[in-house]
Amino acid sequence: MKSILELAKTISPLDRVATEQAVARQLQLTKPTGSLGRLEAIAIQMAGITGEILPIVPLKAVVVMAADHGVTDEGVSAYPAAVTPQMVYNFLQGGAAINVLSRQAEAEVIVVDIGVAAELAHPRLLSRKIRMGTANMALGPAMSREEALQAMTVGIDVLESLTKRDVDLLAIGEMGIGNTTAASAITASLTGVPVELVTGRGTGINDEQFAHKVQVIERALAHNQPDVNDPIDVLTKVGGLEIAGLVGVIIAAAAQRIPVVLDGFISGAAALVAFSLNPAVCDYLFAGHVSVERGHQIILEKLDLSPLLDLELRLGEGTGAVLAMHIIEAALRTHREMATFGEAGVSNREEGE
Amino acid sequence: MKSILELAKTISPLDRVATEQAVARQLQLTKPTGSLGRLEAIAIQMAGITGEILPIVPLKAVVVMAADHGVTDEGVSAYPAAVTPQMVYNFLQGGAAINVLSRQAEAEVIVVDIGVAAELAHPRLLSRKIRMGTANMALGPAMSREEALQAMTVGIDVLESLTKRDVDLLAIGEMGIGNTTAASAITASLTGVPVELVTGRGTGINDEQFAHKVQVIERALAHNQPDVNDPIDVLTKVGGLEIAGLVGVIIAAAAQRIPVVLDGFISGAAALVAFSLNPAVCDYLFAGHVSVERGHQIILEKLDLSPLLDLELRLGEGTGAVLAMHIIEAALRTHREMATFGEAGVSNREEGE
Repeated sequence: MKSILELAKTISPLDRVATEQAVARQLQLTKPTGSLGRLEAIAIQMAGITGEILPIVPLKAVVVMAADHGVTDEGVSAYPAAVTPQMVYNFLQGGAAINVLSRQAEAEVIVVDIGVAAELAHPRLLSRKIRMGTANMALGPAMSREEALQAMTVGIDVLESLTKRDVDLLAIGEMGIGNTTAASAITASLTGVPVELVTGRGTGINDEQFAHKVQVIERALAHNQPDVNDPIDVLTKVGGLEIAGLVGVIIAAAAQRIPVVLDGFISGAAALVAFSLNPAVCDYLFAGHVSVERGHQIILEKLDLSPLLDLELRLGEGTGAVLAMHIIEAALRTHREMATFGEAGVSNREEGE
Repeated sequence: MKSILELAKTISPLDRVATEQAVARQLQLTKPTGSLGRLEAIAIQMAGITGEILPIVPLKAVVVMAADHGVTDEGVSAYPAAVTPQMVYNFLQGGAAINVLSRQAEAEVIVVDIGVAAELAHPRLLSRKIRMGTANMALGPAMSREEALQAMTVGIDVLESLTKRDVDLLAIGEMGIGNTTAASAITASLTGVPVELVTGRGTGINDEQFAHKVQVIERALAHNQPDVNDPIDVLTKVGGLEIAGLVGVIIAAAAQRIPVVLDGFISGAAALVAFSLNPAVCDYLFAGHVSVERGHQIILEKLDLSPLLDLELRLGEGTGAVLAMHIIEAALRTHREMATFGEAGVSNREEGE
């Protein structure tokens, strides 16, 4: 298997021929040019990603990576760390929001334990634990560089197993109490924006807890001094195992020309790391939604991605990404199924009447 | 049958008991409170509309009303008026964007000829033509008050036939070359905002054509002097038959506690008229999306509705409304199907760990 850095180099540009053919088709459909707005742009991008003029996405999946964060020792989250394994079981039993939304979108939910700080066993769980949660980044690096690389390899493996099953459209999500703290630290490092401006309320903390969270992140950055020119060093020192896993998924998907729908702030932080490895990755990404976590908007601006939905979600799990699949599906269906002016006998503007 | 004014008076407030029970249920679902953002609010509003704690919407439909506009004689549109009947046949043959998106959302498409300026016949067409298009509002009233009332009655009839078939969720859409001109005139009249600020590019006109369109609308308003305190007078003088029909649909739906998803600027103008008849109607409305037509944003502000989608659509037909049905469905499914903290054995914040 290729390393993450080798794989990142293999990402190719969009298929220009398919893109141009998709643009030409859009001009023939029975609607004023441009009147389907972003749906048209999505269909054209999907043509460029897949190399098909009329792409379809019969097989959809969401990869949910779960891991714990030693930094919860600092009291940065409103929920106890024990919620991570509890929610993993909830995912496996089909009771979480991501399960419900995935049933609606007809997407398979793939749950990966990449670093939950508890022994987990379930027939549907993909057990690829690197370690029992990260170390507390306020005191030292969250993990070793070797562990970060291993976690990215897990992501590559997961993506490649999905490719073998012909998954056409992938959403990514995560679960990990404390992971907005890691996402903020990564975002501050890789964008240069002050910690205070990329930190939010996570699952719900008050003003005092927010000030404390900012201080913990600043301490972690000061203590670890991640090399901002080395995204893997940032991931190692202030990242998380699920975030590293998602970086692997994103890079491998782009390399294999599989479109990825991002979720919120955490998956956005993974995309930011992937972008830092190779900016070409962005051609393969859709921003499912914009989270109320303020750091997420900053990431989307950096990646030049415009969110498909803005519904004030802040749950993670992949919920916003899977919800956005309906929009992508709508774009592909209109692109494929609408009648052309010729087929329907409708006058086009250019033809006059 | 009740008149539109009588019917408007029968709209009742949301069911407070069902609303409160829905709020209580949201607090028990396995997610941080508020983390599903607007999905939570939608589910709660739907509970209030239907009186059910766990509402479902198995039967969805979109009513597409089509009519022509005499004001197209003034050259206000990029497309010839002949496109209205051509597109009606496209709807009936399943080739238009609204057909594709309705298949995806599993919504039935109901096409109503309420005033197309051509003889139309098709087994699936609901022929309720009031007249062969409106008169040119730049020269005189678009229709008579009697015709406006008849068109609203058509809308009431259509809604009542859907109620008999137990439709749970309704989208509304329209087709009518020239109807953004009527929508702008209505919006300027009923909001007091200058014509220039509520007028857009419709299906696509250039700067010169835009200035001309504004001038035509100003002329129509100056000539007809609609009584801004009488929404039916506004509809009569500068409205459209499909807009009047949709007013009837909206009022009748609210009276029968059926939720209505609005589409863009034209259906928004119909909602503005309905709101002027009874502001209580808004409790039963969802703004499917915000159109790029600038007048639409002004209407949504006036109605205090926040759009579910913002995808730069400007097609009409009901496309944005039907697309938003996926969001409403997601709200209801998460509300109904998610496990509670107790069921899943997940620690709630308040309980600690």
